[in-house]
Amino acid sequence: MKNEKIILIGAGNVGYHLGRRLHEKDFAIAQVFSRTIEHARDLAKAVQAPYVTKFEDVDRNGDLYIISVSDSAIAPVARQLARLELDKPLVVHTSGATPATALMPYFDRFGVFYPLQTFSRARKVDFEPIPICVHAADETDTEQLLGLARQLSSKVYELNDEQRATIHVAAVFVNNFANYLFQVGEDILRKADLPFDLLRPLILETAQKVQEESPAEMQTGPAVRGDEETIKRHLDYLHRFPEYRELYRLLSRRIAEEFN
Amino acid sequence: MKNEKIILIGAGNVGYHLGRRLHEKDFAIAQVFSRTIEHARDLAKAVQAPYVTKFEDVDRNGDLYIISVSDSAIAPVARQLARLELDKPLVVHTSGATPATALMPYFDRFGVFYPLQTFSRARKVDFEPIPICVHAADETDTEQLLGLARQLSSKVYELNDEQRATIHVAAVFVNNFANYLFQVGEDILRKADLPFDLLRPLILETAQKVQEESPAEMQTGPAVRGDEETIKRHLDYLHRFPEYRELYRLLSRRIAEEFN
Repeated sequence: MKNEKIILIGAGNVGYHLGRRLHEKDFAIAQVFSRTIEHARDLAKAVQAPYVTKFEDVDRNGDLYIISVSDSAIAPVARQLARLELDKPLVVHTSGATPATALMPYFDRFGVFYPLQTFSRARKVDFEPIPICVHAADETDTEQLLGLARQLSSKVYELNDEQRATIHVAAVFVNNFANYLFQVGEDILRKADLPFDLLRPLILETAQKVQEESPAEMQTGPAVRGDEETIKRHLDYLHRFPEYRELYRLLSRRIAEEFN
Repeated sequence: MKNEKIILIGAGNVGYHLGRRLHEKDFAIAQVFSRTIEHARDLAKAVQAPYVTKFEDVDRNGDLYIISVSDSAIAPVARQLARLELDKPLVVHTSGATPATALMPYFDRFGVFYPLQTFSRARKVDFEPIPICVHAADETDTEQLLGLARQLSSKVYELNDEQRATIHVAAVFVNNFANYLFQVGEDILRKADLPFDLLRPLILETAQKVQEESPAEMQTGPAVRGDEETIKRHLDYLHRFPEYRELYRLLSRRIAEEFN
C-alpha cells in the first residue's frame, strides 16, 4: 500500500485531517486537488505534495483516489473524474451519509473510507482512536482499504452502506443534536448574564462518563427520578423560552417513559 | 477556616466527593452523618473522621454543617438538625435546584455551597476546574464560603437563588438531555447489532470542541446545512423508531430556525 499512488480529491476538513494522518504515517501523497486554491495549497503543504485546482490537471495514473467533498458534490466530482479516463484505480469517498453505490456509475472499483469523527480545520485530532469504517464492492479492494485503515487507526470496521446509514443517523443525535443542547444551555445562561464557563466542566464530564459506561446507566436528573416538583419549576422558568420549553417537555417525557 | 469544625450531613455522591476534596486540601472533618451506614462508613474512612447514623448523635458544636442530601430531603433533614439546638453554626446545602431559603425556617445562618458537576461514586473527579457556586444570607458568611470554595476550586462564583435556578435548568439540557441523546444513539446502533464504541470518540470530541469555542460556532450536520435530502433519508430510516423520529424532527426544525 505504501508504494501506491494516492491522490486526494477535496481538501475540506475531512480531507485535510485524513491527508495529514496519511502523511504522518509515511504514505506518499502524489497530488492534492481542490477547486479552492487556499485549501489545495494548505493541504499540499501539510502533506508535501503538489496541488492542482482544475480537473484536467488531475494525475491520471493514481492507484487510489480519495474523494473528500460534501455529499451533494460527490456525484458531480465523480463524473468529472470519470471523464479523465483513469487507469482503473480504486476510488473511495469519505462520507457517512452517501452510499458507496453513488460511485458505481463512474468507476469499476469503488468504495468508502469513512473516519467517524467531527473535524474542524483548526483543531488537532488524535487519529488513533477514531473509528474508520471501510467498504468496497470488491473483496480485494476491501482488504486493501482495511489494511490502509489499520495503519491510521486502531478501530477499523468493515460496514456496508446500510450499516453506515444507521451510524450516520445515530451520529446526528450524539453530535449535532447534543451540540444544539449545549447551545441551548449557553443561551439560557447568556440571557441571565451568566458565563457558559459554568457549564463546560459538566459537558466534558457527561461525555467522559459514557466512554466506558452505557449512557443508560449514567442517566440522572429530575425526569429519571420522577421529580415532578423540579420539572414543574423548570417548565415555569421556561415560559420565557417557549421553544426550549417544548423541547424540555418532550425530552423529559421520553426519559420518564424510558426509565419507568 | 481550617480550624473550623466541619460536619458532613449526608454521604451520597456529592457529599462523598466534596468530603474527599476537603480532606485532600487539609480541612479536618469533625464528623460524618448518614442514615445509610455503608455510605457513612465509606466517607468517614475516606476523610478519616468518625461517623454516626442517628440524628441525636450528630455533634452539636460544629462551625459549618454541609447538608448533601437529595432535594426532597433537605427540609426534613434541616428540621431534624434544628431540633438539636446547635450553637449558631453556618448551615449550607449543596443543591443547585433548591433555594437557600429552604433552610431559613431552621437556622439563623444559612447558605448554599453548590459544586456544579455530575458525580458518580466510582469515578474520580478533578475538583480543580469544577465551578463552585456559593451564596449566603449574611455577608460575612458569604466571605467565609467564598474563601473555602477558593481552596477547593479555581472557579468560584457568588450566585443568588435565582441565578442558581437558571443554571440548574441549563444544566439539565447539557447533562441529562445530552446524555439521553447518547442513549438514543446507543439504542439505534444496538438494534442494528452495531457497537456503541463507534460513537464514543465522536461524543468526546463534541464535548471537547465546546471547551474553548461557543457551541453555536461548532454546529454542523444536515439541519444547519439545510440538507433536506439527508434529513428526509434520516426521517425515513426513523419510521421504525417513532419516538426518536419526533425528536429528530423537533431538533432539526429548531436548529434550522436558529441558523437560517
